[in-house]
Amino acid sequence: MMIKVEAYVREDKFEDVKAALNAIGVNGLTVSQVMGCGIQRGYKEIVRGMQVDMQMQPKIKFEIVVSSEEWEVKTIEAIEKAAYTGEPGDGKIFTYEIRHAQKIRTKETGYDAIQATE
Amino acid sequence: MMIKVEAYVREDKFEDVKAALNAIGVNGLTVSQVMGCGIQRGYKEIVRGMQVDMQMQPKIKFEIVVSSEEWEVKTIEAIEKAAYTGEPGDGKIFTYEIRHAQKIRTKETGYDAIQATE
Amino acid sequence: MMIKVEAYVREDKFEDVKAALNAIGVNGLTVSQVMGCGIQRGYKEIVRGMQVDMQMQPKIKFEIVVSSEEWEVKTIEAIEKAAYTGEPGDGKIFTYEIRHAQKIRTKETGYDAIQATE
Ligand SMILES: Nc1ncnc2c1ncn2[C@@H]1O[C@H](COP(=O)(O)OP(=O)(O)OP(=O)(O)O)[C@@H](O)[C@H]1O
Ligand SMILES: Nc1ncnc2c1ncn2[C@@H]1O[C@H](COP(=O)(O)OP(=O)(O)OP(=O)(O)O)[C@@H](O)[C@H]1O
Ligand SMILES: Nc1ncnc2c1ncn2[C@@H]1O[C@H](COP(=O)(O)OP(=O)(O)OP(=O)(O)O)[C@@H](O)[C@H]1O
Ligand SMILES: [Mg+2]
Ligand SMILES: [Mg+2]
Ligand SMILES: [Mg+2]
Repeated sequence: MMIKVEAYVREDKFEDVKAALNAIGVNGLTVSQVMGCGIQRGYKEIVRGMQVDMQMQPKIKFEIVVSSEEWEVKTIEAIEKAAYTGEPGDGKIFTYEIRHAQKIRTKETGYDAIQATE
Repeated sequence: MMIKVEAYVREDKFEDVKAALNAIGVNGLTVSQVMGCGIQRGYKEIVRGMQVDMQMQPKIKFEIVVSSEEWEVKTIEAIEKAAYTGEPGDGKIFTYEIRHAQKIRTKETGYDAIQATE
Repeated sequence: MMIKVEAYVREDKFEDVKAALNAIGVNGLTVSQVMGCGIQRGYKEIVRGMQVDMQMQPKIKFEIVVSSEEWEVKTIEAIEKAAYTGEPGDGKIFTYEIRHAQKIRTKETGYDAIQATE
């Protein structure tokens, strides 16, 4: 099964997360800059009893397509460890199933498309 | 079932859509700037009988992961109402199933990862 | 079945890929700028025997939601042909299933939401 792991992490954890993914040997990844908020709505803690405006914070989104559930777990664990501070705002990881993968240069599909087969 | 709702809306509807999502009480969201076009290819109306170049227009992409089909519906309705003008270019909403969710700070997974449980 | 086709291609192939998608008649698309790397980790070839840092390269991400497996194939083929150079870094294509689609202006859902029905 091919799976995409998506993670939203702190901007200053970009290098650490990238290094952690490199260390486990992922075969590719994509990053982009996004803005977001979680349950604190961008504040330092949850503000109760009044509706506050959402403050968007800059985050880095990682996208990594992997080739098995085993790699899904490995990838999540690597991100989790590298992105952790213990303070609100450390981020979220989501995964979903990929139907089809294709490498444009070689026309390889599926498992082969996301492996280092050469 | 965990579901990601993705919406592409007008730039000048960013604040309205964010406020609508805040009002229904979503527990997190991510936004990014994208470029896109729909069936009019970036023009004011559909140009027939000749093939026109696609004109990319700036749009805002919202991503909201929710914890049930009920929340999927609520989220779609909130976006739809807030993003509507009635003119071409109002945008599109797509949803898909999420396999796994994880909160980095607490290591909570699944439903708990996207709820305000504290 | 509704399917999202996601492709990461070279920056200088943006116009070619867009024109190819226009030529087959897709009804909408979204693009964004991302950074990424594949199995060469951003280098010209695979560096063996030592762990090298990942060098992020700018890429263009295309997202196209289509309404059938037939269109999935057509869309992949169009991108593949337009994005190809034969050198490492040509890019990857991934697809996944979409649960629900909605056009904000008309409230059309599913198949109708992503068709030119007018
Ligand atoms: N439900 C969600 N849907 C989409 N994106 C989300 C969601 N929750 C969080 N995010 C993204 O993850 C980023 C980090 O979220 P954050 O770590 O603050 O989550 P949280 O649930 O508030 O956890 P914590 O309590 O540890 O702060 C957000 O800025 C946003 O980009
Ligand atoms: N099929 C699609 N795949 C990917 N993104 C799409 C698709 N259709 C629309 N979008 C995104 O949604 C944005 C808004 O699209 P738009 O509202 O113009 O859709 P439309 O089908 O042309 O509807 P309308 O007729 O109301 O203009 C686009 O700029 C693009 O970013
Ligand atoms: N497994 C992956 N997960 C997420 N994104 C990826 C993955 N593999 C590649 N990408 C994205 O696609 C872009 C292009 O990748 P690239 O074409 O170099 O892949 P490759 O497997 O190294 O193929 P080639 O050997 O032809 O270079 C990367 O910069 C990255 O954005
Ligand atoms: Mg938070
Ligand atoms: Mg349109
Ligand atoms: Mg490569």
